[in-house]
Amino acid sequence: MSSPFFTKHLVQFYETDSMGIVHHSNYLRFFEEARVAWGHKNGLIDYQKPESAARFAVFSSQVKHHLPSFFGDELRTEVAGFLEGATVRFEYKIFCETRLIATGETVHVAMTADLKPTRPSKEMIAVLRSENG
Amino acid sequence: MSSPFFTKHLVQFYETDSMGIVHHSNYLRFFEEARVAWGHKNGLIDYQKPESAARFAVFSSQVKHHLPSFFGDELRTEVAGFLEGATVRFEYKIFCETRLIATGETVHVAMTADLKPTRPSKEMIAVLRSENG
Amino acid sequence: MSSPFFTKHLVQFYETDSMGIVHHSNYLRFFEEARVAWGHKNGLIDYQKPESAARFAVFSSQVKHHLPSFFGDELRTEVAGFLEGATVRFEYKIFCETRLIATGETVHVAMTADLKPTRPSKEMIAVLRSENG
Amino acid sequence: MSSPFFTKHLVQFYETDSMGIVHHSNYLRFFEEARVAWGHKNGLIDYQKPESAARFAVFSSQVKHHLPSFFGDELRTEVAGFLEGATVRFEYKIFCETRLIATGETVHVAMTADLKPTRPSKEMIAVLRSENG
Repeated sequence: MSSPFFTKHLVQFYETDSMGIVHHSNYLRFFEEARVAWGHKNGLIDYQKPESAARFAVFSSQVKHHLPSFFGDELRTEVAGFLEGATVRFEYKIFCETRLIATGETVHVAMTADLKPTRPSKEMIAVLRSENG
Repeated sequence: MSSPFFTKHLVQFYETDSMGIVHHSNYLRFFEEARVAWGHKNGLIDYQKPESAARFAVFSSQVKHHLPSFFGDELRTEVAGFLEGATVRFEYKIFCETRLIATGETVHVAMTADLKPTRPSKEMIAVLRSENG
Repeated sequence: MSSPFFTKHLVQFYETDSMGIVHHSNYLRFFEEARVAWGHKNGLIDYQKPESAARFAVFSSQVKHHLPSFFGDELRTEVAGFLEGATVRFEYKIFCETRLIATGETVHVAMTADLKPTRPSKEMIAVLRSENG
Repeated sequence: MSSPFFTKHLVQFYETDSMGIVHHSNYLRFFEEARVAWGHKNGLIDYQKPESAARFAVFSSQVKHHLPSFFGDELRTEVAGFLEGATVRFEYKIFCETRLIATGETVHVAMTADLKPTRPSKEMIAVLRSENG
Protein backbone atom coordinates (compact mmCIF):
# COMPACT_ATOMS: atom_id res chain seq x y z
CA MET A 1 0.00 0.00 0.00
CA SER A 2 1.48 3.31 -1.07
CA SER A 3 1.61 6.48 1.01
CA PRO A 4 -1.02 9.06 0.13
CA PHE A 5 -0.22 11.91 -2.23
CA PHE A 6 -0.20 15.26 -0.44
CA THR A 7 0.55 18.95 -0.83
CA LYS A 8 1.64 21.47 1.80
CA HIS A 9 0.13 24.90 2.29
CA LEU A 10 1.34 27.62 4.65
CA VAL A 11 -1.76 29.50 5.85
CA GLN A 12 -1.58 33.14 4.75
CA PHE A 13 -2.90 36.18 6.60
CA TYR A 14 -5.27 36.88 3.69
CA GLU A 15 -6.90 33.47 4.24
CA THR A 16 -8.04 34.34 7.78
CA ASP A 17 -11.27 36.08 8.75
CA SER A 18 -12.52 38.22 11.67
CA MET A 19 -13.01 35.07 13.69
CA GLY A 20 -9.21 34.74 13.71
CA ILE A 21 -9.28 31.45 11.78
CA VAL A 22 -9.05 30.31 8.16
CA HIS A 23 -12.30 31.21 6.37
CA HIS A 24 -14.15 28.00 5.53
CA SER A 25 -14.36 28.75 1.79
CA ASN A 26 -10.58 28.35 1.55
CA TYR A 27 -10.72 24.63 2.24
CA LEU A 28 -12.20 24.05 -1.23
CA ARG A 29 -9.17 25.93 -2.54
CA PHE A 30 -6.77 23.77 -0.52
CA PHE A 31 -8.56 20.70 -1.93
CA GLU A 32 -8.08 22.10 -5.45
CA GLU A 33 -4.37 22.68 -4.82
CA ALA A 34 -3.96 19.03 -3.84
CA ARG A 35 -6.18 17.65 -6.63
CA VAL A 36 -4.46 19.68 -9.33
CA ALA A 37 -0.99 18.73 -8.06
CA TRP A 38 -2.11 15.08 -8.07
CA GLY A 39 -3.32 15.48 -11.68
CA HIS A 40 -0.07 17.17 -12.65
CA LYS A 41 2.07 14.47 -11.04
CA ASN A 42 0.12 11.82 -12.94
CA GLY A 43 0.42 13.58 -16.30
CA LEU A 44 -3.31 14.36 -16.44
CA ILE A 45 -3.05 18.14 -16.03
CA ASP A 46 -0.58 20.27 -17.94
CA TYR A 47 0.21 23.60 -16.26
CA GLN A 48 0.94 25.02 -19.70
CA LYS A 49 -2.61 24.13 -20.78
CA PRO A 50 -5.12 25.52 -18.31
CA GLU A 51 -7.90 23.82 -20.27
CA SER A 52 -6.51 20.51 -19.04
CA ALA A 53 -7.68 21.51 -15.54
CA ALA A 54 -10.86 23.09 -16.86
CA ARG A 55 -11.85 19.80 -18.48
CA PHE A 56 -12.61 18.47 -15.06
CA ALA A 57 -15.75 20.20 -13.78
CA VAL A 58 -16.75 20.18 -10.10
CA PHE A 59 -20.11 18.47 -9.73
CA SER A 60 -20.36 18.53 -5.93
CA SER A 61 -18.28 19.13 -2.82
CA GLN A 62 -18.47 18.38 0.89
CA VAL A 63 -16.31 19.70 3.70
CA LYS A 64 -16.38 18.72 7.36
CA HIS A 65 -14.48 20.92 9.82
CA HIS A 66 -12.88 19.10 12.74
CA LEU A 67 -10.65 21.84 14.15
CA PRO A 68 -9.96 25.43 13.07
CA SER A 69 -6.66 26.34 11.44
CA PHE A 70 -4.71 29.54 11.91
CA PHE A 71 -2.36 32.04 10.30
CA GLY A 72 1.06 30.43 9.86
CA ASP A 73 -0.16 26.84 10.19
CA GLU A 74 1.52 24.43 7.81
CA LEU A 75 -1.29 22.30 6.43
CA ARG A 76 -0.82 18.93 4.76
CA THR A 77 -3.61 17.96 2.37
CA GLU A 78 -3.83 14.28 1.48
CA VAL A 79 -5.81 13.39 -1.62
CA ALA A 80 -6.90 10.14 -3.24
CA GLY A 81 -9.02 9.67 -6.40
CA PHE A 82 -11.62 7.01 -7.16
CA LEU A 83 -13.39 6.10 -10.39
CA GLU A 84 -17.14 5.85 -9.86
CA GLY A 85 -19.04 5.14 -13.06
CA ALA A 86 -18.59 8.16 -15.30
CA THR A 87 -17.47 10.38 -12.42
CA VAL A 88 -14.27 10.77 -10.44
CA ARG A 89 -14.45 11.28 -6.70
CA PHE A 90 -11.59 12.69 -4.63
CA GLU A 91 -11.29 12.32 -0.88
CA TYR A 92 -9.24 14.77 1.18
CA LYS A 93 -7.82 14.92 4.69
CA ILE A 94 -6.18 18.10 5.92
CA PHE A 95 -3.80 17.86 8.87
CA CYS A 96 -1.78 20.37 10.87
CA GLU A 97 1.00 18.30 12.40
CA THR A 98 -0.98 15.34 13.77
CA ARG A 99 -4.27 17.18 14.25
CA LEU A 100 -7.05 16.45 11.77
CA ILE A 101 -8.37 19.84 10.63
CA ALA A 102 -10.83 19.02 7.85
CA THR A 103 -12.03 16.18 5.67
CA GLY A 104 -14.04 16.32 2.50
CA GLU A 105 -14.70 15.10 -0.98
CA THR A 106 -15.37 16.50 -4.43
CA VAL A 107 -17.02 14.74 -7.36
CA HIS A 108 -16.00 15.65 -10.89
CA VAL A 109 -17.25 15.10 -14.39
CA ALA A 110 -14.89 15.10 -17.37
CA MET A 111 -15.81 17.65 -20.04
CA THR A 112 -15.14 17.86 -23.76
CA ALA A 113 -13.46 20.93 -25.24
CA ASP A 114 -16.90 22.49 -25.70
CA LEU A 115 -17.85 21.70 -22.10
CA LYS A 116 -20.17 18.73 -22.63
CA PRO A 117 -19.97 15.90 -20.05
CA THR A 118 -17.99 12.92 -21.24
CA ARG A 119 -16.25 9.87 -19.79
CA PRO A 120 -12.89 10.30 -18.05
CA SER A 121 -9.94 9.88 -20.42
CA LYS A 122 -8.27 6.49 -20.76
CA GLU A 123 -5.19 7.98 -19.10
CA MET A 124 -7.20 9.05 -16.06
CA ILE A 125 -8.97 5.71 -15.81
CA ALA A 126 -5.60 3.95 -15.93
CA VAL A 127 -4.19 6.13 -13.16
CA LEU A 128 -7.23 5.71 -10.92
CA ARG A 129 -7.27 1.92 -11.42
CA SER A 130 -3.58 1.59 -10.64
CA GLU A 131 -4.02 3.59 -7.42
CA ASN A 132 -7.06 1.77 -6.10
CA GLY A 133 -7.11 -1.46 -8.08
CA MET B 1 -46.56 29.56 3.82
CA SER B 2 -44.18 32.49 3.50
CA SER B 3 -41.90 33.20 0.56
CA PRO B 4 -38.28 32.22 1.13
CA PHE B 5 -35.73 34.78 2.30
CA PHE B 6 -33.20 35.56 -0.42
CA THR B 7 -30.29 37.81 -1.34
CA LYS B 8 -29.14 38.93 -4.78
CA HIS B 9 -25.56 38.86 -6.04
CA LEU B 10 -24.23 40.25 -9.30
CA VAL B 11 -21.40 37.98 -10.42
CA GLN B 12 -18.13 39.91 -10.57
CA PHE B 13 -15.24 39.43 -12.98
CA TYR B 14 -12.96 38.55 -10.01
CA GLU B 15 -15.25 35.61 -9.17
CA THR B 16 -14.66 33.88 -12.50
CA ASP B 17 -11.81 31.50 -13.35
CA SER B 18 -9.94 30.37 -16.49
CA MET B 19 -12.83 28.06 -17.29
CA GLY B 20 -14.88 31.19 -17.93
CA ILE B 21 -17.32 30.41 -15.10
CA VAL B 22 -17.72 31.29 -11.41
CA HIS B 23 -15.09 29.40 -9.41
CA HIS B 24 -16.81 26.78 -7.27
CA SER B 25 -15.33 28.07 -3.97
CA ASN B 26 -17.42 31.24 -4.37
CA TYR B 27 -20.69 29.42 -3.81
CA LEU B 28 -19.83 28.98 -0.13
CA ARG B 29 -19.38 32.76 -0.08
CA PHE B 30 -22.76 33.33 -1.73
CA PHE B 31 -24.30 31.00 0.87
CA GLU B 32 -22.64 33.07 3.63
CA GLU B 33 -24.00 36.31 2.16
CA ALA B 34 -27.53 34.90 2.29
CA ARG B 35 -27.14 33.30 5.75
CA VAL B 36 -25.68 36.44 7.31
CA ALA B 37 -28.37 38.66 5.75
CA TRP B 38 -31.00 36.23 7.11
CA GLY B 39 -29.41 36.46 10.58
CA HIS B 40 -29.28 40.25 10.33
CA LYS B 41 -32.92 40.53 9.26
CA ASN B 42 -33.92 38.36 12.22
CA GLY B 43 -31.90 40.36 14.74
CA LEU B 44 -29.45 37.51 15.34
CA ILE B 45 -26.40 39.13 13.74
CA ASP B 46 -25.36 42.71 14.39
CA TYR B 47 -23.17 44.19 11.65
CA GLN B 48 -21.64 46.47 14.26
CA LYS B 49 -20.55 43.39 16.21
CA PRO B 50 -18.64 41.01 13.96
CA GLU B 51 -18.42 38.57 16.87
CA SER B 52 -22.16 38.03 16.47
CA ALA B 53 -21.40 36.35 13.13
CA ALA B 54 -18.30 34.65 14.47
CA ARG B 55 -20.36 32.97 17.20
CA PHE B 56 -21.78 30.72 14.58
CA ALA B 57 -19.08 28.32 13.45
CA VAL B 58 -19.33 26.30 10.22
CA PHE B 59 -19.31 22.58 11.05
CA SER B 60 -19.87 21.22 7.55
CA SER B 61 -20.91 22.27 4.06
CA GLN B 62 -22.19 20.67 0.88
CA VAL B 63 -22.61 22.18 -2.56
CA LYS B 64 -24.12 20.59 -5.65
CA HIS B 65 -23.59 22.34 -9.00
CA HIS B 66 -26.47 22.06 -11.46
CA LEU B 67 -25.41 24.66 -14.05
CA PRO B 68 -22.45 27.02 -14.31
CA SER B 69 -22.89 30.75 -13.70
CA PHE B 70 -21.11 33.54 -15.51
CA PHE B 71 -19.77 37.08 -15.25
CA GLY B 72 -22.67 39.51 -14.99
CA ASP B 73 -25.27 36.92 -13.93
CA GLU B 74 -27.67 38.15 -11.29
CA LEU B 75 -27.93 35.31 -8.80
CA ARG B 76 -30.74 34.88 -6.30
CA THR B 77 -29.80 32.83 -3.22
CA GLU B 78 -32.71 31.44 -1.20
CA VAL B 79 -31.95 30.35 2.34
CA ALA B 80 -33.94 28.62 5.08
CA GLY B 81 -32.75 27.60 8.56
CA PHE B 82 -33.67 24.51 10.60
CA LEU B 83 -33.00 23.64 14.22
CA GLU B 84 -31.55 20.13 14.55
CA GLY B 85 -30.63 19.22 18.11
CA ALA B 86 -27.82 21.52 19.17
CA THR B 87 -26.99 22.48 15.57
CA VAL B 88 -28.56 24.76 12.99
CA ARG B 89 -28.75 23.65 9.39
CA PHE B 90 -29.27 26.03 6.47
CA GLU B 91 -30.45 24.99 3.04
CA TYR B 92 -29.70 27.08 -0.04
CA LYS B 93 -30.89 27.26 -3.62
CA ILE B 94 -29.17 29.57 -6.09
CA PHE B 95 -31.06 30.61 -9.21
CA CYS B 96 -30.21 32.73 -12.24
CA GLU B 97 -33.59 33.81 -13.54
CA THR B 98 -35.49 30.50 -13.52
CA ARG B 99 -32.46 28.25 -13.93
CA LEU B 100 -31.30 26.33 -10.86
CA ILE B 101 -27.54 26.90 -10.59
CA ALA B 102 -26.56 25.34 -7.27
CA THR B 103 -28.03 23.84 -4.12
CA GLY B 104 -26.37 23.16 -0.82
CA GLU B 105 -26.44 23.18 2.92
CA THR B 106 -24.25 24.23 5.82
CA VAL B 107 -24.43 23.02 9.41
CA HIS B 108 -23.44 25.37 12.23
CA VAL B 109 -22.66 25.17 15.89
CA ALA B 110 -23.21 28.12 18.22
CA MET B 111 -20.08 29.22 20.07
CA THR B 112 -19.50 31.02 23.34
CA ALA B 113 -17.37 34.18 23.45
CA ASP B 114 -14.30 31.98 24.07
CA LEU B 115 -15.22 29.73 21.12
CA LYS B 116 -16.59 26.71 22.99
CA PRO B 117 -19.60 24.92 21.42
CA THR B 118 -22.88 25.79 23.09
CA ARG B 119 -26.61 25.62 22.34
CA PRO B 120 -28.15 28.15 19.95
CA SER B 121 -29.46 31.25 21.72
CA LYS B 122 -33.10 31.45 22.77
CA GLU B 123 -33.56 34.17 20.17
CA MET B 124 -32.28 31.92 17.38
CA ILE B 125 -34.36 28.98 18.54
CA ALA B 126 -37.44 31.22 18.56
CA VAL B 127 -36.76 32.45 15.01
CA LEU B 128 -36.12 28.95 13.65
CA ARG B 129 -39.28 27.57 15.31
CA SER B 130 -41.43 30.37 13.99
CA GLU B 131 -40.13 29.79 10.45
CA ASN B 132 -40.51 26.03 10.38
CA GLY B 133 -42.91 25.31 13.22
CA MET C 1 -21.40 69.13 -13.46
CA SER C 2 -22.90 65.67 -13.08
CA SER C 3 -22.85 63.56 -9.92
CA PRO C 4 -20.22 60.82 -9.89
CA PHE C 5 -21.12 57.27 -10.90
CA PHE C 6 -20.99 54.90 -7.94
CA THR C 7 -21.73 51.36 -6.82
CA LYS C 8 -22.64 50.09 -3.36
CA HIS C 9 -21.07 47.10 -1.63
CA LEU C 10 -22.12 45.53 1.66
CA VAL C 11 -18.95 44.24 3.34
CA GLN C 12 -19.14 40.46 3.77
CA PHE C 13 -17.69 38.37 6.58
CA TYR C 14 -15.46 36.57 4.05
CA GLU C 15 -13.84 39.91 3.13
CA THR C 16 -12.50 40.48 6.65
CA ASP C 17 -9.22 39.22 8.06
CA SER C 18 -7.77 38.38 11.51
CA MET C 19 -7.20 42.07 12.09
CA GLY C 20 -11.02 42.41 12.18
CA ILE C 21 -11.07 44.70 9.12
CA VAL C 22 -11.52 44.32 5.35
CA HIS C 23 -8.37 42.76 3.89
CA HIS C 24 -6.59 45.35 1.76
CA SER C 25 -6.59 43.19 -1.40
CA ASN C 26 -10.38 43.51 -1.55
CA TYR C 27 -10.25 47.21 -2.40
CA LEU C 28 -8.96 46.36 -5.88
CA ARG C 29 -12.05 44.15 -6.18
CA PHE C 30 -14.35 46.97 -5.05
CA PHE C 31 -12.67 49.20 -7.64
CA GLU C 32 -13.33 46.55 -10.30
CA GLU C 33 -17.00 46.29 -9.30
CA ALA C 34 -17.39 50.05 -9.80
CA ARG C 35 -15.35 50.20 -13.03
CA VAL C 36 -17.19 47.28 -14.62
CA ALA C 37 -20.61 48.70 -13.63
CA TRP C 38 -19.51 52.04 -15.13
CA GLY C 39 -18.52 50.26 -18.35
CA HIS C 40 -21.78 48.35 -18.42
CA LYS C 41 -23.87 51.48 -17.87
CA ASN C 42 -22.04 53.15 -20.75
CA GLY C 43 -22.52 50.22 -23.13
CA LEU C 44 -18.79 49.40 -23.14
CA ILE C 45 -18.99 46.08 -21.29
CA ASP C 46 -21.53 43.40 -22.07
CA TYR C 47 -22.18 41.01 -19.19
CA GLN C 48 -23.09 38.37 -21.77
CA LYS C 49 -19.62 38.74 -23.27
CA PRO C 50 -16.95 38.38 -20.60
CA GLU C 51 -14.32 39.15 -23.23
CA SER C 52 -15.68 42.70 -23.31
CA ALA C 53 -14.31 43.12 -19.78
CA ALA C 54 -11.19 41.13 -20.54
CA ARG C 55 -10.33 43.52 -23.36
CA PHE C 56 -9.38 46.04 -20.80
CA ALA C 57 -6.17 44.93 -19.11
CA VAL C 58 -4.96 46.38 -15.81
CA PHE C 59 -1.60 48.06 -16.33
CA SER C 60 -1.15 49.50 -12.83
CA SER C 61 -3.04 50.18 -9.60
CA GLN C 62 -2.66 52.33 -6.52
CA VAL C 63 -4.64 52.25 -3.30
CA LYS C 64 -4.39 54.59 -0.32
CA HIS C 65 -6.11 53.55 2.91
CA HIS C 66 -7.56 56.39 4.97
CA LEU C 67 -9.68 54.44 7.46
CA PRO C 68 -10.39 50.74 7.92
CA SER C 69 -13.78 49.28 6.95
CA PHE C 70 -15.64 46.54 8.77
CA PHE C 71 -18.07 43.64 8.39
CA GLY C 72 -21.51 44.99 7.54
CA ASP C 73 -20.32 48.42 6.36
CA GLU C 74 -22.16 49.71 3.32
CA LEU C 75 -19.45 51.09 1.06
CA ARG C 76 -20.05 53.55 -1.76
CA THR C 77 -17.41 53.46 -4.50
CA GLU C 78 -17.28 56.50 -6.77
CA VAL C 79 -15.49 56.09 -10.07
CA ALA C 80 -14.53 58.43 -12.90
CA GLY C 81 -12.59 57.61 -16.11
CA PHE C 82 -10.05 59.72 -17.99
CA LEU C 83 -8.49 59.27 -21.40
CA GLU C 84 -4.71 59.66 -21.22
CA GLY C 85 -2.98 59.02 -24.53
CA ALA C 86 -3.53 55.37 -25.40
CA THR C 87 -4.48 54.48 -21.82
CA VAL C 88 -7.55 54.95 -19.67
CA ARG C 89 -7.16 55.94 -16.05
CA PHE C 90 -9.89 55.48 -13.44
CA GLU C 91 -10.00 57.30 -10.13
CA TYR C 92 -11.89 55.89 -7.14
CA LYS C 93 -13.11 57.13 -3.79
CA ILE C 94 -14.65 54.71 -1.32
CA PHE C 95 -16.87 56.12 1.44
CA CYS C 96 -18.74 54.60 4.36
CA GLU C 97 -21.45 57.15 5.10
CA THR C 98 -19.44 60.39 5.09
CA ARG C 99 -16.11 58.84 6.08
CA LEU C 100 -13.46 58.51 3.36
CA ILE C 101 -12.18 54.92 3.57
CA ALA C 102 -9.90 54.56 0.55
CA THR C 103 -8.84 56.32 -2.63
CA GLY C 104 -7.03 54.91 -5.61
CA GLU C 105 -6.57 54.66 -9.32
CA THR C 106 -6.07 52.02 -11.96
CA VAL C 107 -4.60 52.46 -15.43
CA HIS C 108 -5.80 50.25 -18.26
CA VAL C 109 -4.76 49.36 -21.77
CA ALA C 110 -7.27 48.23 -24.37
CA MET C 111 -6.49 44.83 -25.86
CA THR C 112 -7.35 43.19 -29.16
CA ALA C 113 -9.09 39.80 -29.21
CA ASP C 114 -5.66 38.12 -29.21
CA LEU C 115 -4.51 40.26 -26.26
CA LYS C 116 -2.27 42.75 -28.04
CA PRO C 117 -2.34 46.36 -26.79
CA THR C 118 -4.41 48.67 -28.94
CA ARG C 119 -6.11 52.09 -28.71
CA PRO C 120 -9.36 52.39 -26.76
CA SER C 121 -12.45 51.88 -28.94
CA LYS C 122 -14.18 54.88 -30.50
CA GLU C 123 -17.13 54.20 -28.22
CA MET C 124 -14.96 54.38 -25.10
CA ILE C 125 -13.21 57.53 -26.29
CA ALA C 126 -16.60 59.15 -26.91
CA VAL C 127 -17.83 58.25 -23.42
CA LEU C 128 -14.66 59.47 -21.70
CA ARG C 129 -14.70 62.75 -23.66
CA SER C 130 -18.35 63.42 -22.87
CA GLU C 131 -17.72 62.87 -19.15
CA ASN C 132 -14.59 64.98 -18.85
CA GLY C 133 -14.68 67.17 -21.92
CA MET D 1 25.67 42.89 -1.01
CA SER D 2 23.30 40.13 0.00
CA SER D 3 20.85 38.33 -2.29
CA PRO D 4 17.26 39.49 -1.96
CA PHE D 5 14.83 37.61 0.25
CA PHE D 6 12.15 35.84 -1.79
CA THR D 7 9.22 33.45 -1.61
CA LYS D 8 7.91 31.09 -4.26
CA HIS D 9 4.27 30.70 -5.23
CA LEU D 10 2.78 28.14 -7.61
CA VAL D 11 -0.14 29.84 -9.37
CA GLN D 12 -3.38 28.03 -8.55
CA PHE D 13 -6.41 27.56 -10.79
CA TYR D 14 -8.53 29.55 -8.32
CA GLU D 15 -6.23 32.56 -8.81
CA THR D 16 -7.04 32.85 -12.51
CA ASP D 17 -9.94 34.75 -14.06
CA SER D 18 -12.00 34.58 -17.28
CA MET D 19 -9.21 36.36 -19.10
CA GLY D 20 -7.14 33.20 -18.56
CA ILE D 21 -4.55 35.00 -16.41
CA VAL D 22 -3.95 35.64 -12.70
CA HIS D 23 -6.49 38.19 -11.45
CA HIS D 24 -4.68 41.41 -10.62
CA SER D 25 -5.94 41.54 -7.01
CA ASN D 26 -3.86 38.45 -6.22
CA TYR D 27 -0.57 40.30 -6.62
CA LEU D 28 -1.23 42.16 -3.36
CA ARG D 29 -1.64 38.71 -1.81
CA PHE D 30 1.65 37.49 -3.29
CA PHE D 31 3.30 40.64 -1.90
CA GLU D 32 1.82 39.85 1.52
CA GLU D 33 3.13 36.27 1.37
CA ALA D 34 6.65 37.59 0.75
CA ARG D 35 6.45 40.41 3.32
CA VAL D 36 5.09 38.16 6.06
CA ALA D 37 7.72 35.48 5.35
CA TRP D 38 10.38 38.19 5.50
CA GLY D 39 8.98 39.36 8.85
CA HIS D 40 8.89 35.80 10.13
CA LYS D 41 12.47 35.08 9.04
CA ASN D 42 13.60 38.22 10.87
CA GLY D 43 11.76 37.39 14.09
CA LEU D 44 9.31 40.28 13.65
CA ILE D 45 6.19 38.20 12.98
CA ASP D 46 5.23 35.19 15.04
CA TYR D 47 2.90 32.77 13.22
CA GLN D 48 1.53 31.71 16.60
CA LYS D 49 0.51 35.32 17.25
CA PRO D 50 -1.55 36.66 14.36
CA GLU D 51 -1.63 40.05 16.06
CA SER D 52 2.09 40.34 15.30
CA ALA D 53 1.13 40.59 11.61
CA ALA D 54 -1.91 42.72 12.35
CA ARG D 55 0.29 45.30 14.08
CA PHE D 56 1.53 46.31 10.71
CA ALA D 57 -1.26 48.12 8.87
CA VAL D 58 -1.19 48.71 5.12
CA PHE D 59 -1.22 52.44 4.42
CA SER D 60 -0.87 52.31 0.63
CA SER D 61 0.00 49.96 -2.22
CA GLN D 62 1.07 50.18 -5.84
CA VAL D 63 1.32 47.43 -8.43
CA LYS D 64 2.64 47.65 -11.97
CA HIS D 65 1.94 44.75 -14.33
CA HIS D 66 4.68 44.00 -16.85
CA LEU D 67 3.51 40.62 -18.16
CA PRO D 68 0.56 38.38 -17.30
CA SER D 69 1.09 35.19 -15.30
CA PHE D 70 -0.75 31.92 -15.77
CA PHE D 71 -2.04 28.79 -14.06
CA GLY D 72 0.91 26.63 -13.03
CA ASP D 73 3.52 29.38 -13.23
CA GLU D 74 6.08 29.27 -10.45
CA LEU D 75 6.44 32.85 -9.30
CA ARG D 76 9.38 34.19 -7.32
CA THR D 77 8.58 37.29 -5.26
CA GLU D 78 11.57 39.33 -4.10
CA VAL D 79 11.01 41.73 -1.24
CA ALA D 80 13.11 44.38 0.48
CA GLY D 81 12.09 46.69 3.34
CA PHE D 82 13.10 50.32 3.96
CA LEU D 83 12.64 52.56 6.98
CA GLU D 84 11.16 55.92 5.96
CA GLY D 85 10.45 58.18 8.90
CA ALA D 86 7.72 56.51 10.96
CA THR D 87 6.71 54.22 8.08
CA VAL D 88 8.14 51.08 6.53
CA ARG D 89 8.12 50.68 2.78
CA PHE D 90 8.51 47.36 1.01
CA GLU D 91 9.48 46.96 -2.63
CA TYR D 92 8.58 43.84 -4.58
CA LYS D 93 9.59 42.24 -7.86
CA ILE D 94 7.75 39.18 -9.12
CA PHE D 95 9.47 36.98 -11.68
CA CYS D 96 8.50 33.85 -13.59
CA GLU D 97 11.82 32.31 -14.56
CA THR D 98 13.66 35.35 -15.95
CA ARG D 99 10.58 37.29 -17.02
CA LEU D 100 9.58 40.26 -14.88
CA ILE D 101 5.84 39.87 -14.21
CA ALA D 102 5.03 42.63 -11.72
CA THR D 103 6.66 45.22 -9.51
CA GLY D 104 5.17 47.17 -6.66
CA GLU D 105 5.45 48.62 -3.22
CA THR D 106 3.44 48.80 -0.02
CA VAL D 107 3.80 51.33 2.79
CA HIS D 108 3.01 50.29 6.35
CA VAL D 109 2.42 51.92 9.67
CA ALA D 110 3.12 50.12 12.93
CA MET D 111 0.11 49.90 15.24
CA THR D 112 -0.28 49.54 18.99
CA ALA D 113 -2.37 46.70 20.43
CA ASP D 114 -5.41 48.97 20.30
CA LEU D 115 -4.68 49.90 16.66
CA LYS D 116 -3.26 53.40 17.10
CA PRO D 117 -0.35 54.38 14.83
CA THR D 118 3.02 54.19 16.50
CA ARG D 119 6.69 54.02 15.56
CA PRO D 120 8.14 50.72 14.27
CA SER D 121 9.56 48.54 17.04
CA LYS D 122 13.26 48.75 17.88
CA GLU D 123 13.62 45.21 16.54
CA MET D 124 12.16 46.19 13.17
CA ILE D 125 14.29 49.33 12.96
CA ALA D 126 17.39 47.26 13.68
CA VAL D 127 16.53 44.73 10.95
CA LEU D 128 15.78 47.42 8.36
CA ARG D 129 18.98 49.32 9.17
CA SER D 130 21.11 46.19 8.92
CA GLU D 131 19.60 45.33 5.53
CA ASN D 132 19.94 48.78 3.96
CA GLY D 133 22.47 50.52 6.19
